[in-house]
Amino acid sequence: MINLSLIGIGTGNPDHVTFQGAQAIRSADLILIPRKGENKADLAGLREDIIDRVTETPPRIAYFDIPRRRADDGYLRGVDEWHDAIALRWQEAIEAHPEAQNIALLIWGDPSLYDSSLRIAARLDPKPNTRVIPGITALQALTAAHAIPINDLGAPYVVTTGRRIRKEGWPETASKVAVMLDGECSFQSLRMSEYDIWWGAYVGMKEELLISGPLDQVAQRILDTRARARADHGWIMDIYLLKKRDVQQRAANTDS
Amino acid sequence: MINLSLIGIGTGNPDHVTFQGAQAIRSADLILIPRKGENKADLAGLREDIIDRVTETPPRIAYFDIPRRRADDGYLRGVDEWHDAIALRWQEAIEAHPEAQNIALLIWGDPSLYDSSLRIAARLDPKPNTRVIPGITALQALTAAHAIPINDLGAPYVVTTGRRIRKEGWPETASKVAVMLDGECSFQSLRMSEYDIWWGAYVGMKEELLISGPLDQVAQRILDTRARARADHGWIMDIYLLKKRDVQQRAANTDS
Ligand SMILES: C[S@@+](CC[C@H](N)C(=O)[O-])C[C@H]1O[C@@H](n2cnc3c(N)ncnc32)[C@H](O)[C@@H]1O
Ligand SMILES: C[S@@+](CC[C@H](N)C(=O)[O-])C[C@H]1O[C@@H](n2cnc3c(N)ncnc32)[C@H](O)[C@@H]1O
Repeated sequence: MINLSLIGIGTGNPDHVTFQGAQAIRSADLILIPRKGENKADLAGLREDIIDRVTETPPRIAYFDIPRRRADDGYLRGVDEWHDAIALRWQEAIEAHPEAQNIALLIWGDPSLYDSSLRIAARLDPKPNTRVIPGITALQALTAAHAIPINDLGAPYVVTTGRRIRKEGWPETASKVAVMLDGECSFQSLRMSEYDIWWGAYVGMKEELLISGPLDQVAQRILDTRARARADHGWIMDIYLLKKRDVQQRAANTDS
Repeated sequence: MINLSLIGIGTGNPDHVTFQGAQAIRSADLILIPRKGENKADLAGLREDIIDRVTETPPRIAYFDIPRRRADDGYLRGVDEWHDAIALRWQEAIEAHPEAQNIALLIWGDPSLYDSSLRIAARLDPKPNTRVIPGITALQALTAAHAIPINDLGAPYVVTTGRRIRKEGWPETASKVAVMLDGECSFQSLRMSEYDIWWGAYVGMKEELLISGPLDQVAQRILDTRARARADHGWIMDIYLLKKRDVQQRAANTDS
């Protein structure tokens, strides 16, 4: 039976790697590395750097191409077929290295957070013995960079996607909401005068950009900064935390 | 101006420490370590082990006692005064070492998640230059141990406390809810036949306990296991993820 390690490597800062992650990389005898198309971050390069840094003699690496996503179907059906297709690439890479027992993938952030590798691993046949090594998430990189807590004292918080914010609005139970996977600055769909935002792009990386403040006052700056950075780098990844101000706090802020 | 590093160290597994965390420990010239009363996990010991492991000559350590929490006031007022009192202890320890410029605290999990160190740091006078180093949270240790994602595909999730689940019930916007800070197995206040649970205690530590399954079927086992472990060790920390099954899935589960 094959051991498959899904190793969280953090979100762009190689120093986010944990001792446990480094150890798991060292004990792999085959590492699968995805190659995306052009116009994307060279994340393969970051993975190679991390491997070089933690190993004396680097383990064998098998590159695989991530198949194109079909956007014409319904959202979920498209994702399902896409995961099937990726699983096939993993399967091929694994079968091409029958000597490899301990196979690893270096997962952006943490494998448990908005990541499909666990769902893809479950499609392999025969089923591997899958192990997850947690890694620093983009959310943690964001709150660390701004030096803020993610939750209000003893209060719940919600993590969601840009799509959901646009479709469903603010989740009423929450005082704080973190938004990921948002290509469209979906905070614009909210009544912006009621929120504070802590925004970050390329968080933890040398390109890191951070903006925070009352949403209505900084929204335009975020839009401009994001558009410029995206044009400059050819890609962007951003994330933000929103807090709904309560009436009392809003009054106090206006006073000062 | 003093530099204060709040370093996330993970939740009991010293291998959760990141390279960035190890580097920050090495560059500290004073580390503050809290001492709790008896009958508690010897978390001071774990912190000392981590320091020994990542440094050649260990930096100076200042121990401070965590003041008792006043439970007689209202919840928030009690917490506020308690944070004031802890800030005073930090302040004393810092003033006792006027030569120290780079001061560090090793924070359980990640400093951004249900942790008061950022709020305590903000009370110091003069204000330090505060830096946060993210660490693996109990939530990540839990999902890694069970090898599960925290979110359903493209769906939001909520993180909350046992108290909130008891007082406010299930947050209706969510398909998955993670519960922390729950001394009372508050999942019992839900209609248990509608949920699946992934529970863990001492997650990431050698004492780790894991139970998962349909909530109504495993609840009693969790209660018993938790009570026994707590009696054996004298302390417990546990956390869980709940998923509300939808009607379709419930029907499918009954079929199989
Ligand atoms: C498919 S999810 C993967 C999340 C990852 N598993 C994690 O733990 O952070 C990708 C989303 O994460 C966020 N993200 C990842 N890395 C980021 C970074 N370095 N800076 C800002 N956002 C990032 C963005 O919101 C992006 O749309
Ligand atoms: C005050 S909060 C601190 C959380 C921490 N900052 C983090 O990032 O995980 C303490 C709560 O975290 C959870 N917790 C912390 N460590 C844990 C562990 N090793 N196993 C299970 N739960 C843990 C429990 O729910 C506990 O009540």
